[in-house]
Amino acid sequence: MNKIITISREFGSGGREIGKRLAAKLGYAYYDSEIINLLANATGKSEEYIQNISERGVYPYAFQFAKSFSMYSKMQQEQTDMMITQQKILKQIAEKGNCVIVGRGADRILREYNPMNIFIYANIESKIKRCRKKRKDESLTDKELMQKIKEIDKERVNYHNIISHVKWGSKENYHLCINTSNLEIKNIISPLADYIENFFGRDKK
Amino acid sequence: MNKIITISREFGSGGREIGKRLAAKLGYAYYDSEIINLLANATGKSEEYIQNISERGVYPYAFQFAKSFSMYSKMQQEQTDMMITQQKILKQIAEKGNCVIVGRGADRILREYNPMNIFIYANIESKIKRCRKKRKDESLTDKELMQKIKEIDKERVNYHNIISHVKWGSKENYHLCINTSNLEIKNIISPLADYIENFFGRDKK
Repeated sequence: MNKIITISREFGSGGREIGKRLAAKLGYAYYDSEIINLLANATGKSEEYIQNISERGVYPYAFQFAKSFSMYSKMQQEQTDMMITQQKILKQIAEKGNCVIVGRGADRILREYNPMNIFIYANIESKIKRCRKKRKDESLTDKELMQKIKEIDKERVNYHNIISHVKWGSKENYHLCINTSNLEIKNIISPLADYIENFFGRDKK
Repeated sequence: MNKIITISREFGSGGREIGKRLAAKLGYAYYDSEIINLLANATGKSEEYIQNISERGVYPYAFQFAKSFSMYSKMQQEQTDMMITQQKILKQIAEKGNCVIVGRGADRILREYNPMNIFIYANIESKIKRCRKKRKDESLTDKELMQKIKEIDKERVNYHNIISHVKWGSKENYHLCINTSNLEIKNIISPLADYIENFFGRDKK
């Protein structure tokens, strides 16, 4: 069976960086925004549209933007279809080879593939600092940025609630939870990759 | 500053084994039941008595065993004294040198020493299996053993609630949370030791 690592992460905690570096270190394929491209190809929708709904609580999103009930129904249907397509794509990815997948509820969608599920989190000060460094959100005040971080995580919770009854971020649902507050991510990749190799090693016995 | 690792753990999750092996690997001092001995020496109480109250919600314990109000008050006072002595001993340990401390709320009591706090947990099946292997609780049914595991963890929660407002087992309060379900502990020690060395390395920058 292929070795699959799923990375769930709080916004601003460095989960994407960990995923990318781990994949490079382990020689695994890496999927994050790549999933958006695959979804766009499969559905014929624009990447921007998919970005907006691929990892959010999609129904509240439809409710917010629909201008009539029929439009709401249509959007709801479209989004449900999108989620089903996304699940298919994730399973195709899992069949293809060893990989690291960031977000999109891959921890739950791919559970029959026995992935190693990692959750990345950090304290709010550290997340603000990381956002400022990476995303150049200079125009936002700390309070606004904190609000944005909370909102994005809330959308992830909503999305997770649609695909699973399991609580997003609850440690019981992950094999390893890493607090990146004040951590230099590049320094933890090598031991983390060793840990993962040992984790998957258990299947060999 | 000395490097201090605190290990909080669910009963049966292998936290003690991880602590012991990590200390050996890193060349750090190891404290678990050693704290009981130190407390016994410091207070003149028996090790058995101390074992009973050193990591439990001590007030409910006093309430259960006291035969009169004056006896309850006396036990309560004794136990409060014991906790204060335990805190002093933990701080002496932290001053002494690099160490791994298992349990006893060291994560909170020693926070001014910037410890690395690790939480060890596992699913119930795995904990039952580990208990059976290590503790030879053969006389208990699975249901009774599950009950025992829950009760011991509840006592740890009670103890933690007395010394801190921080929630025991909530991932935000730890730097790393490790799910040991189905894991062979000896295999993860080496990468974990590397991770810890990198974690403390951040102070050098």
